[in-house]
Amino acid sequence: MHTLTKQPTSFLDAITGPAELKQLSVEDLQKLAGEIRHEIVSSLSRTGGHLASNLGIVEITLALHRVFNTPQDQILWDVGHQAYVHKMLTGRRNRFDTLRQFKGLSGFVTPVESEHDAFVAGHSSTSVSLAVGMAIARDHLQQDHKVIAVIGDGGLTGGMALEAINHLGHIQKNVLIVLNDNEMSISENTGGLALYMKRIKETFFYRDIKEKLDSIEGSLDKVQLTAGIWDMILEVKKQAKERFDTPGIVFEKLGINYSGPVDGHDVDAVVQAFEAVKDKSAPQIVHLITCKGKGYQPAEDDSIKYHGVPAFSLEPQLSEKVEASATKTKPKTYSDIFTQALIDLAKEEPNLVAITPATAEGSGLVKFGKAYPDRFFDVAICEQHAVTMAAGMAKSGLKPVVSIYSTFLQRAMDQVIHDVAILNLPVVFGVDRGGLVEDGETHQGVFDIAYLRSVPNFTVLAPKDAQELRDMVYTAVKECKGPVAIRFPRDKAVGATTDGAEQTADFNLIDPASWEVLQPAQLDGNAKSKPPVILAYGAMVDVTRQALELVKSEQRPVLVNARSAKPLDTNLLSGFIRDGYDTFITVEEGCLAGGFGAAVLEWMSTSGQEIADGLPRVLPIAIPDQFVEHGARAILLDLNGLSKEKIAQRIEKVLAKHS
Amino acid sequence: MHTLTKQPTSFLDAITGPAELKQLSVEDLQKLAGEIRHEIVSSLSRTGGHLASNLGIVEITLALHRVFNTPQDQILWDVGHQAYVHKMLTGRRNRFDTLRQFKGLSGFVTPVESEHDAFVAGHSSTSVSLAVGMAIARDHLQQDHKVIAVIGDGGLTGGMALEAINHLGHIQKNVLIVLNDNEMSISENTGGLALYMKRIKETFFYRDIKEKLDSIEGSLDKVQLTAGIWDMILEVKKQAKERFDTPGIVFEKLGINYSGPVDGHDVDAVVQAFEAVKDKSAPQIVHLITCKGKGYQPAEDDSIKYHGVPAFSLEPQLSEKVEASATKTKPKTYSDIFTQALIDLAKEEPNLVAITPATAEGSGLVKFGKAYPDRFFDVAICEQHAVTMAAGMAKSGLKPVVSIYSTFLQRAMDQVIHDVAILNLPVVFGVDRGGLVEDGETHQGVFDIAYLRSVPNFTVLAPKDAQELRDMVYTAVKECKGPVAIRFPRDKAVGATTDGAEQTADFNLIDPASWEVLQPAQLDGNAKSKPPVILAYGAMVDVTRQALELVKSEQRPVLVNARSAKPLDTNLLSGFIRDGYDTFITVEEGCLAGGFGAAVLEWMSTSGQEIADGLPRVLPIAIPDQFVEHGARAILLDLNGLSKEKIAQRIEKVLAKHS
Repeated sequence: MHTLTKQPTSFLDAITGPAELKQLSVEDLQKLAGEIRHEIVSSLSRTGGHLASNLGIVEITLALHRVFNTPQDQILWDVGHQAYVHKMLTGRRNRFDTLRQFKGLSGFVTPVESEHDAFVAGHSSTSVSLAVGMAIARDHLQQDHKVIAVIGDGGLTGGMALEAINHLGHIQKNVLIVLNDNEMSISENTGGLALYMKRIKETFFYRDIKEKLDSIEGSLDKVQLTAGIWDMILEVKKQAKERFDTPGIVFEKLGINYSGPVDGHDVDAVVQAFEAVKDKSAPQIVHLITCKGKGYQPAEDDSIKYHGVPAFSLEPQLSEKVEASATKTKPKTYSDIFTQALIDLAKEEPNLVAITPATAEGSGLVKFGKAYPDRFFDVAICEQHAVTMAAGMAKSGLKPVVSIYSTFLQRAMDQVIHDVAILNLPVVFGVDRGGLVEDGETHQGVFDIAYLRSVPNFTVLAPKDAQELRDMVYTAVKECKGPVAIRFPRDKAVGATTDGAEQTADFNLIDPASWEVLQPAQLDGNAKSKPPVILAYGAMVDVTRQALELVKSEQRPVLVNARSAKPLDTNLLSGFIRDGYDTFITVEEGCLAGGFGAAVLEWMSTSGQEIADGLPRVLPIAIPDQFVEHGARAILLDLNGLSKEKIAQRIEKVLAKHS
Repeated sequence: MHTLTKQPTSFLDAITGPAELKQLSVEDLQKLAGEIRHEIVSSLSRTGGHLASNLGIVEITLALHRVFNTPQDQILWDVGHQAYVHKMLTGRRNRFDTLRQFKGLSGFVTPVESEHDAFVAGHSSTSVSLAVGMAIARDHLQQDHKVIAVIGDGGLTGGMALEAINHLGHIQKNVLIVLNDNEMSISENTGGLALYMKRIKETFFYRDIKEKLDSIEGSLDKVQLTAGIWDMILEVKKQAKERFDTPGIVFEKLGINYSGPVDGHDVDAVVQAFEAVKDKSAPQIVHLITCKGKGYQPAEDDSIKYHGVPAFSLEPQLSEKVEASATKTKPKTYSDIFTQALIDLAKEEPNLVAITPATAEGSGLVKFGKAYPDRFFDVAICEQHAVTMAAGMAKSGLKPVVSIYSTFLQRAMDQVIHDVAILNLPVVFGVDRGGLVEDGETHQGVFDIAYLRSVPNFTVLAPKDAQELRDMVYTAVKECKGPVAIRFPRDKAVGATTDGAEQTADFNLIDPASWEVLQPAQLDGNAKSKPPVILAYGAMVDVTRQALELVKSEQRPVLVNARSAKPLDTNLLSGFIRDGYDTFITVEEGCLAGGFGAAVLEWMSTSGQEIADGLPRVLPIAIPDQFVEHGARAILLDLNGLSKEKIAQRIEKVLAKHS
């Protein structure tokens, strides 16, 4: 069923751009869909990537390019990770082997890559807002083209998509919303709207109410009625029919014309549905039912597992490499350690609850959900609601832990300030993907240190290794009286074993306001001054430790695990200054502007220089002021000066000035 | 009709807490409503405050406290500015003369003030999320009380409220949503949902479909039908009735049981509506129709004008002061200047469009809307949608200007990064209320410099006076190739005349990356070193100029208008360092953590100290790491070290060390 031996790709080979699609018959399109599906599985088996969502949208993509004309017509792919087929059809097929690799094809859409990509995407629920903006621009500039938002049912749970639909219903611009409904966000979908759409689907072929009406009408013909009564019956029938025949009544009520549901894997039906709305000027939503992972049985069976796949993780027969790696247990990630800590802690903390906005799998939290289903809340793609709901829980006596990716927490910045921090509520944030990730610009978790540190009442921690992450979770839940963020990268955890035995062994209380001196100074008798003090934050502690092994110098810097970016350990800093240390190097995996280094600079500029004889120097090593592209984490760290080699070079430079 | 002579308050005088309400008859409650209304108008005429919304919610508040029992039952007041009646009924009546004054009653709800305030509020659309969180906590802790979210139709347009309703529909917790529907957010309401609710109201007493069905049924009785047909007719009637009788079908479809609409000024009806749902365990929404400004004719006629009123601005007969100030033209604010600049510029920029999320009045942008209705977009309370829509517009060739308050832009942090900055789109942000405002913790616009500065591609400007604001708007729209934020406080504009003639006279292009030396150094021959250089940002330029007039010292500091926090004018800074200046003082109306001072520190720590002989000192003057309470702007500035007196003291201290 999912053999991946070489298959013919005669139709796909003939496609150099969307124009050729218009020449194919519907039967040939359906064949082309099969070829594309095979190519996706075969390609992702080598590169990794978003599998299930792309298999689900093959026919929809074909139909879109068949009926509409990009780049004149603008297609906005919500989230953007389901646009692989679109990329194949718009001249990027021959670069698929470079997918998600450094300088290769992006795993998301971006106009930098192709004129057929109308906008950048990576986060969910933005497409309808963009479409409304572009439609207003089109009409203002008196242009004539279609603006199309392609959004999943998961994306619809995001508040900003609902804001945009609400606005579109009001201003009635010519926008087509293509709703790709597979009953999934990243994990399982949540929400009244999802249940509602499920009910729509239950009436997919169920037209019995209409049939009943017809039957009544037929029967009534036989009896004698006055004309007035007959009119009334017709009127009632008309009005009832309007309602019974409108599965999309919620959308209709909001001012968006609804059509569907349509089988999203029937190319012919999808093409017809698009043709039917193509020339309408009022806003339209076409509701298409699809199956995530369609055509590749393992992905159909478990689309959550196959949402994103790493390279060489598909069927064993694909590659010898898989066989080898499959037998080896995977190293534990910080996400794994975080989740395990919550599970262990939940035993003794009956009021601990965990919240995630649709990232239960990515964050590993799904395991917590299995262990404590009643204390686990996956709210779907609702970052704002997730955070404010947690604030309500904390105010009412629970101990909420929000597991959220660094970039997604940007969606809830106001809720962090307004609902959590003002009342100084004890909400714990597990800030996952804090740092550089392979996904590119939209997913780089580099702003959290800066934006969380500026919020009063916050504690902003980052662990140096697996055990410290456990201890931070424990301390935050047990002791902290206000909000605590614990940020960690998407990476294997330092010090974690593959079976994780010792991580579950114990919990230790730590003092968040105290740092840890890992390597004291080794003074060189000839040196004019004390060596620099390196203040490393989070995952950079271990990288800096490795960097110091590369540094060739007799004068050995002090290495500090500066585990809290807020508050700073000002006692330790004051002590260093009193002892004559005059140079500090901060190392963090976050943006330079306003980050941990800036925190140390701010303190030095006020309190620090009051103590100092001379003015202490601070050299921040951090991510420069630019968006970081996609590629392997190791490459990106090096590019941004955060590999052990680059950090070693910076340290050597400072040492050279010193000695 | 709105005479404000002393009225009897016998019922109100008898109320010391919610318990007494339960003793009153419905007729007495209605009389009490009248007394409360009079007291509100009379009180706000002295203190200023949110008038129209509080007049509109008198009966609802009475009914809530009649039927439910705070503080056991938790009432979450969305936005919180409509809780004056609630405050009066919960022991705070005698402090109403201190409303919104420093150390006086807050203009919003806060648990710090009363146990009857279940949470803090100030921003819109948070109440349902909080209620969901609190209901989950209640059930988990096996408590037994009601959780009630009171939200306006305006608040419902906010995406996070829709996220929360969607989630509530899914988890079916016992939450009561009281929808106070007055067809208004702050300005006029927008959205398909608003239009839909309008249609519900049109059928308020219109039950003719039901009547028609009854009539058919009656007629059919008279003719002979088979039993089968008769059953079918009953079935159709039942199903049709369910739908026709459900004006709240959208809510019902989302899983929230709907009742209403009910006249929100009929205490008896509202009490009955609450009684009817009080003991239900599934989520309920009660839809109440109210009139903003109810009972005070000028506010009923123009609830937008009377949304918030300054002290002594009500009817002339209230106070002699009003007579005097009414004849004087008000000084122009930065908001006025900003709007006028847009209006003037729109003449020559046909693709300039303005966007506001429901703050058209507060920002003065309503004037732009009147001048250019087709190029004005009030999207309602939808900050996220507003920003991403603007990104779509910019990508498609328009020149969008988003007018938004500093604290509300926090709602769209991710959209700023993900949708505007990654593609470096030329969206101009007029960041209003950037700085301290009298409204308190929830509204302090102190984080924007820090969070915008950390975003790559951004230019972050602040004008020193009215003319510079005009020039910045002009330059940003005409020349800038990427996103530009222009932030200004809620205050009268420096250099603006009351008639504003010269501000409309011209526009000048400025170089955003260059600062302006306003006062060069005056060297004291005896001084050991050069005087400090003061880098003042935005509104702090004028305050610092005044501070320098107070400084008693022969050595005169340099004063620089550092109009751009990003980019910095590194040429000017380098020049100062080369010329031997070694001390810099930054002054900004924003948080210390990560702000403008931090930007200068970051640059000094890297590039600056490469140039310097010794290490330059930087002393940042900014808002300390704490939330700032409510009170007059002048008081708050002084409290936070940003009055001219406090700045002068800091400068004198630095000078004392120097000389």
